[in-house]
Amino acid sequence: MNGLLTDLYELTMAACYFETAKADEKATFEFTIRQLPPHRNFVLAAGLPHIVDYLLNLSFTSEEIDYLRNLAQFRNASTAFWDYLRRFRFTGDLFAVPEGTPLFAGEPVLTIRGPIIEAQIPETYVLSAIAFQTLIASKAVRSVEAAGGRDVVEFGTRRAHTPEAGVLGARAAYIGGCSGTSNTLAGFRYGVPVMGTAAHSWVMSFPCEMEAFRRLQRVLGDSTVQLLDTYDSLEGARHAAKLGSPLWGVRIDSGDFLSLSRQIRTILDEAGLRESKIMASGDLDEYRIRDLVNAGAPIDAFGVGTQLATSADAPSLSATYKMVELDIRGIQRYTAKYSEDKISVPGSKQVFRDVARDVIARSAECGKGEALLRPVILGGSLVEPLPTLEQARERAARSVASLAPALRQLEVGEPWPVIYSRELRELVDRTRRNLVG
Amino acid sequence: MNGLLTDLYELTMAACYFETAKADEKATFEFTIRQLPPHRNFVLAAGLPHIVDYLLNLSFTSEEIDYLRNLAQFRNASTAFWDYLRRFRFTGDLFAVPEGTPLFAGEPVLTIRGPIIEAQIPETYVLSAIAFQTLIASKAVRSVEAAGGRDVVEFGTRRAHTPEAGVLGARAAYIGGCSGTSNTLAGFRYGVPVMGTAAHSWVMSFPCEMEAFRRLQRVLGDSTVQLLDTYDSLEGARHAAKLGSPLWGVRIDSGDFLSLSRQIRTILDEAGLRESKIMASGDLDEYRIRDLVNAGAPIDAFGVGTQLATSADAPSLSATYKMVELDIRGIQRYTAKYSEDKISVPGSKQVFRDVARDVIARSAECGKGEALLRPVILGGSLVEPLPTLEQARERAARSVASLAPALRQLEVGEPWPVIYSRELRELVDRTRRNLVG
Repeated sequence: MNGLLTDLYELTMAACYFETAKADEKATFEFTIRQLPPHRNFVLAAGLPHIVDYLLNLSFTSEEIDYLRNLAQFRNASTAFWDYLRRFRFTGDLFAVPEGTPLFAGEPVLTIRGPIIEAQIPETYVLSAIAFQTLIASKAVRSVEAAGGRDVVEFGTRRAHTPEAGVLGARAAYIGGCSGTSNTLAGFRYGVPVMGTAAHSWVMSFPCEMEAFRRLQRVLGDSTVQLLDTYDSLEGARHAAKLGSPLWGVRIDSGDFLSLSRQIRTILDEAGLRESKIMASGDLDEYRIRDLVNAGAPIDAFGVGTQLATSADAPSLSATYKMVELDIRGIQRYTAKYSEDKISVPGSKQVFRDVARDVIARSAECGKGEALLRPVILGGSLVEPLPTLEQARERAARSVASLAPALRQLEVGEPWPVIYSRELRELVDRTRRNLVG
Repeated sequence: MNGLLTDLYELTMAACYFETAKADEKATFEFTIRQLPPHRNFVLAAGLPHIVDYLLNLSFTSEEIDYLRNLAQFRNASTAFWDYLRRFRFTGDLFAVPEGTPLFAGEPVLTIRGPIIEAQIPETYVLSAIAFQTLIASKAVRSVEAAGGRDVVEFGTRRAHTPEAGVLGARAAYIGGCSGTSNTLAGFRYGVPVMGTAAHSWVMSFPCEMEAFRRLQRVLGDSTVQLLDTYDSLEGARHAAKLGSPLWGVRIDSGDFLSLSRQIRTILDEAGLRESKIMASGDLDEYRIRDLVNAGAPIDAFGVGTQLATSADAPSLSATYKMVELDIRGIQRYTAKYSEDKISVPGSKQVFRDVARDVIARSAECGKGEALLRPVILGGSLVEPLPTLEQARERAARSVASLAPALRQLEVGEPWPVIYSRELRELVDRTRRNLVG
């Protein structure tokens, strides 16, 4: 299952390793954040459960193997290789930073160690799954910070890159601190709280707005959220006010949110609907939320869609999955890439975080502070159940709250100090001398 | 299946329509491109087969229904509504523009007509699936145009927003004219030609590059593509040249592609490897491809990843799914949204394309030129098999080739004329008077 959900070269490399009698060499690959995206002071790790699922279920069906056998690239592959693929299972180890952990440039997110083919094939899937969910969690936390305690609800599935990306994005946004999502499947599958209001089509399906509002209220009771802007938001607010309770709240989806929210608040208050909330949605991002909050707009909840679901100002993460160590029948080699503009750092690593800085060290070192990478899979088996989604969300809230204030601002500030340990620096120099010297 | 893969409000609206005895009203919804993304002169429609699959399989499992029953929003829903959901199937009609058709701002991509609940629920899925694949196909065609006949291969799964988005993106990029993809599953599932080269880890797993290259060649034969930049691209080229044939080609993945490709071409030619190709990859987009082509870089194939797989300069499409008509037990109503900054156009539509312009007309009008929207599903059944992927790709190539030259440039030019028919303009005025007057 999922064996072909990878770049072809991972599989041609598998064949080459196998045919070159290298299949029993043990490799360590690291997923590393090369650079922070623009406008980010940190990223928030997310997506680990999907990597675990992937690794524990990675295999090849006979149809998939037949497909590969007919490709020119595999013309010289032996029957033994196809037998190997047929029996393929992940038997290695996975070390990873828990979901909800803030990370900085140069830091590893996870390490996969195992027979070289088993560690090579996951590259494509791991990069995509972790990077995407990390981007969304990282974007979500910015809107949540900007909202200063008001609710932020993820509304973006319709703009996500496939509906399924909407489901995973909703989950990641919840880790980042969103209060919930409009994505129903994310509720069913992951337990993310789901929220919904009303559609323009509902209002449009009645001859007049008042009738539409009355009927909605009758079915939805105290879950009623009236959508005000089908024709005219203020007129809509007067209609909602006239109908009175039950009314959870109203939603404005276009227009000048500051001025509208103030006028609507007055209309609702004067009708005695002080408990009814105002939600705003439509082209919102963290900057617009901050402006509205700073201006004192009486908005209780923000629905954030497009900008969040696509991480629009940073739709990709500069990350690498590189081999850092190779154990060739007991002989340890450290590996790195030293091309002109893309350099990788050899050796399996650990990150130690204390109150003043992060130290990237070699994995066997002892360090001060919290060791961020933890064993998740050993010898192909899950070490212990992963933290729940709620635990990941709490970890995120706690970790973000403890970051230096400059890192929590929307603007890019002084970076958090991340240094290499002396042992790691020595390894870098030694490896470079061996390879290039 | 997939019943919950939608925004919650689609389902609360379903309950409200049902409980208000509106379930037998027949609605027409249109998916419309509101605005072209920045830097685009047109978009290329893609993703239709996934909408067809979705509609033909849309249903709710008992577990999904139990989940909904426990949500506060459905507290007042009747047993009859849950029975309705249990039997739910799409019985309506789908009209759509074929994949590979260029479209412009204001134009409909598809129309769904059926009982109002059946037409409402698909909104979220349709917006996401069509918009994403359309964005990728539209981005791909730009790189292909810039490459002026040289191959462009889609390499972006690792940056796609989930691995599955990588598969669908690879398919869309192929429609847009890419020669192939690195995504193996896109090959297996859709027949997209797959390509692969070699990994840095392969080179790094040997004590020296020469040995790595030799072993690769022995397994891959004339599919061999040597990756040159693990340590030094020119030194890599000399190693590849020394080994000679068989060698499909080499890949450079970092550095100054213009200067490197010239030097490498010379190295290969001097070794008699005139047939071996040079492929470049790494942070490429249509602008860099154009610059390299214009400068005469001897590059035969471009691997495009991040920018293509995320449509990085336009990661979302401004599109709407709005109710345009409602048939209430035989009485026809035309519906539109007239809020401050978001206006929709009432009435079911057709687009007629001739050599001079597009005319958006009412669906029952006769027009000049090609009628773009065609029946795909009628009464819940597929009318005829959809065009194959190859046919969609050919349609795209043919349609793009026939566009005005200004529209095929990378820069935004004079827009293609898109006008409303007189009948449609009259309907817009009449509807507005009825609603607002």
